Amino acid sequence: MSVRIFSGDRKLNAIPTDDRGLAYGDGLFETMRAYQGEVPWWDAHWSRLQLGAHRARLPLPDRKQVMAEAAQLCAGRDGVLKLIVTRGGGSRGYAPPTDVAPTWLLSWHPLPRPHRPGGLVLRWCETRVALQPALAGIKHCNRLEQVLARAEWNDPGIDEGLLRSTDGDVVGATAANVFLFDGDRWRTPLVDRCGIAGVGRGWILATTDAREERLMPEDVEAAEALVLCNAVRGILPVARLGDRSWPPHPAVQALRERLGHAHPAFVPEEDA
Amino acid sequence: MSVRIFSGDRKLNAIPTDDRGLAYGDGLFETMRAYQGEVPWWDAHWSRLQLGAHRARLPLPDRKQVMAEAAQLCAGRDGVLKLIVTRGGGSRGYAPPTDVAPTWLLSWHPLPRPHRPGGLVLRWCETRVALQPALAGIKHCNRLEQVLARAEWNDPGIDEGLLRSTDGDVVGATAANVFLFDGDRWRTPLVDRCGIAGVGRGWILATTDAREERLMPEDVEAAEALVLCNAVRGILPVARLGDRSWPPHPAVQALRERLGHAHPAFVPEEDA
Repeated sequence: MSVRIFSGDRKLNAIPTDDRGLAYGDGLFETMRAYQGEVPWWDAHWSRLQLGAHRARLPLPDRKQVMAEAAQLCAGRDGVLKLIVTRGGGSRGYAPPTDVAPTWLLSWHPLPRPHRPGGLVLRWCETRVALQPALAGIKHCNRLEQVLARAEWNDPGIDEGLLRSTDGDVVGATAANVFLFDGDRWRTPLVDRCGIAGVGRGWILATTDAREERLMPEDVEAAEALVLCNAVRGILPVARLGDRSWPPHPAVQALRERLGHAHPAFVPEEDA
Repeated sequence: MSVRIFSGDRKLNAIPTDDRGLAYGDGLFETMRAYQGEVPWWDAHWSRLQLGAHRARLPLPDRKQVMAEAAQLCAGRDGVLKLIVTRGGGSRGYAPPTDVAPTWLLSWHPLPRPHRPGGLVLRWCETRVALQPALAGIKHCNRLEQVLARAEWNDPGIDEGLLRSTDGDVVGATAANVFLFDGDRWRTPLVDRCGIAGVGRGWILATTDAREERLMPEDVEAAEALVLCNAVRGILPVARLGDRSWPPHPAVQALRERLGHAHPAFVPEEDA
């Protein structure tokens, strides 16, 4: 892993020991696909970061400096670029310091392995996601629920887990959003009470007639087709969820091709 | 601030850049009162850490090594000792790494200023605490709710804020537990759905006939007396909450004297 650390516009050699990201998860992050050294969804990632910063009242670094450092780190390659922004250093205690420079880290990671041929295998997680409208949608660094959910299985035959809220409705996968096809259109859970407004999810909502709705597990089980999406992998077909299985579906193929046309980083692996 | 960083039993010069505490708030912490170089409530702090480690399936460092390093850092002084334990370094992604050494930080901080003469001034916070039984009670590092709540005011005339859950019941203060006296006994909110099982709270429950109950804001407003408690400050009288004020009460005095007798670190400041 190659990594660069900053406090405001100043380069650091190490993470400050009093960093509030470490103390309280007091930060935001973005995990971005880099393709030939560029980040196709950069604008969407930065917009979500701005929304998160507004909601959590967190300072952001200079966008141009982040872009320039990211371009150097990507160095023309394909891979994954991760940005963490925290509220910076501070004395002990929850009160956010004023006039603090944000700490930010850029790190470079290899692309994940290609997905399982035929589609992903999912399970339902037991861990429930709490309802917290004040933090819903944004990609903040308080992610113990996702860690606990992902810790429920280590069977390599399972690719992802679907999460329900403490109220029983479907939230998404631990590291992806979920869309179901009801025979007429795509539908995805609202992220008004919990969950993350993924960048891939945003692309589908903006470019198709997909709808955000409160969805229950029985809606998922009854779907004609199911996909997961995130900003690194694009759109991935789901083949199985517990005992329920889905054959390949033309609506999935059409959605994946549409994204592949929008950007070559996301041409379906089997077609690339 | 003086600080020591370790990975398992090995001393580090800096926090690992891939530390899961920074990435996900994937860790636990304890904030402890040190008195003449010793931590009076050490056993209670370590027990809560063990419970948190069990619930979050997190590895802990060796207790004896932590104690020895803590003793060196305290160096016979009065102050505040903070311990953070994270799940250590790991590759990108929520799946907890196996066989990972925990990262742990010990840091030393000065005692907070003495409390306001006559008692604390409180407010009700707007930020609500989500109901998450899987993480309730333990002192984990996902603390954005407390940060948002504490960010609601910067009036130095306000000492602390009381939090309600998304369900409306009282949780506690941002950095302390709350007890109310109903004329007969002390009562404190349950921490089965959210909130932290504070070490000072545990001492009161274990040594008096205080009860844990679901408490509503009107219970607090109707109380004969109110105190906050935490492991650094001990038990502090509350003088005012919004428009409601309380004169000194013999039950508060008795409770504070009882704690002062149990350990000289917590002799009420006005008597010390």
